[in-house]
Amino acid sequence: MPQLVVKGISPQVMMGISKLLVEELVEICQCAADNFTIDCLSVTSVFGGETVTTYPFVEVAWFERGPVIRDAFARAVTQHLHAAGVVDVELAFKVYEESAYYINGESCSA
Amino acid sequence: MPQLVVKGISPQVMMGISKLLVEELVEICQCAADNFTIDCLSVTSVFGGETVTTYPFVEVAWFERGPVIRDAFARAVTQHLHAAGVVDVELAFKVYEESAYYINGESCSA
Amino acid sequence: MPQLVVKGISPQVMMGISKLLVEELVEICQCAADNFTIDCLSVTSVFGGETVTTYPFVEVAWFERGPVIRDAFARAVTQHLHAAGVVDVELAFKVYEESAYYINGESCSA
Repeated sequence: MPQLVVKGISPQVMMGISKLLVEELVEICQCAADNFTIDCLSVTSVFGGETVTTYPFVEVAWFERGPVIRDAFARAVTQHLHAAGVVDVELAFKVYEESAYYINGESCSA
Repeated sequence: MPQLVVKGISPQVMMGISKLLVEELVEICQCAADNFTIDCLSVTSVFGGETVTTYPFVEVAWFERGPVIRDAFARAVTQHLHAAGVVDVELAFKVYEESAYYINGESCSA
Repeated sequence: MPQLVVKGISPQVMMGISKLLVEELVEICQCAADNFTIDCLSVTSVFGGETVTTYPFVEVAWFERGPVIRDAFARAVTQHLHAAGVVDVELAFKVYEESAYYINGESCSA
């Protein structure tokens, strides 16, 4: 964690921004680069009776870090995606509780 | 938003109901049709030592709108899926906080 | 529910552990086996400018059952995955509210 889970943006685009973006997120979150994961979901989107291009969306799953870090995180992801040509960037944070997150069977609140 | 994220129901089925369903959801939520997205996830399900048909499930990601709208929303999705031949429909709402949802870098609570 | 949603672990591995794991989870949760689903997501992961192996991760979507059952659940999943050769197992619980979970149009809190 943080985990970036991506819909509607190709792995190629995410690959292209991944290095510099993660370097910036490391500074913002003050945690090691290998805590970050970027997963592009395979989805088929439909609308109005037909298949459509998937709307770009990034869900960030993390432990709550507060509004200052969250704002900076959102801006960093948005700027890199804008620079890569993604026009509209929507992004939401999903909070995991440390007590409900387990690494090799041990809760992160233990 | 709202985003419908679907498992175990084919894009063909979702395509077939998408037009009338979204028209109904527009009335229920009093928001524009282009706020809605319908994404079918690609998943492989397993059970009892073998691969199985994925159990139909819809997760609705949205900002909380209260029980009256939520009930109506759930009934609308369920009725359209029943009519399309999906026998058992399970559906859950996942709430995003406006303060943790960003459009082009700006928080929706800003 | 509970739903196990899996990234970075193959359907083959999940299939291999699914029978005994679910039997154990049935005891832990005191609910019927057919409440459980195991869905492996299709994802492409990127990091450092290239595609990478997806980091193993299990999200458990459920109604809150408290820390004792949660700990036992996490340990059971972790032990079966370790035995199947998955070295690092991260797992998080996502809580659905009963009032926001609908089966065939009826809320589970109704």
